[in-house]
Amino acid sequence: MDIQIIGYIAAFCTSLSFLPQAVKVIKTRNTDSLSLSMYSVFSFGVLLWLIYGALLGDMPMIVANTITLLFALIILAMKVHHRVQKLRYQQQD
Amino acid sequence: MDIQIIGYIAAFCTSLSFLPQAVKVIKTRNTDSLSLSMYSVFSFGVLLWLIYGALLGDMPMIVANTITLLFALIILAMKVHHRVQKLRYQQQD
Repeated sequence: MDIQIIGYIAAFCTSLSFLPQAVKVIKTRNTDSLSLSMYSVFSFGVLLWLIYGALLGDMPMIVANTITLLFALIILAMKVHHRVQKLRYQQQD
Repeated sequence: MDIQIIGYIAAFCTSLSFLPQAVKVIKTRNTDSLSLSMYSVFSFGVLLWLIYGALLGDMPMIVANTITLLFALIILAMKVHHRVQKLRYQQQD
């Protein structure tokens, strides 16, 4: 079996795995147990992978990391939104 | 700047970013907003990246994905543990 196929399946899994998390966060509006620092550092790391793939001209890396970055940023935005909301409520109390 | 450095920083960020999530899950014992399917598919994908890196003999990929897999499996185990506990409580009710 061509080694590259393993790489493509790996990229497919690690990229699309963030879709169910993004859907869950959007549906439940619950981000309590998600780590803000994880998604901040992770999104930055994926952005670097995307730049790295672009510099190498490696299309699978570009596609996989674009998808992952999209989902990671959706989750990060929801987490930041809830954290800001929480701070506002605490100030009003 | 050597392109490889971007790859190393990216690997460092995406691997270690799961550490704060693992710590948060262990501390708070709250995995409600985490997606079981995300961590199942993600862990499988990272395992494939690890095999892919081993077949290529690519040490940074091996190291980065071993770390990521370790943290992802900790989080997955906690999520599965809580899901099993929840099912038990529901059966007792």
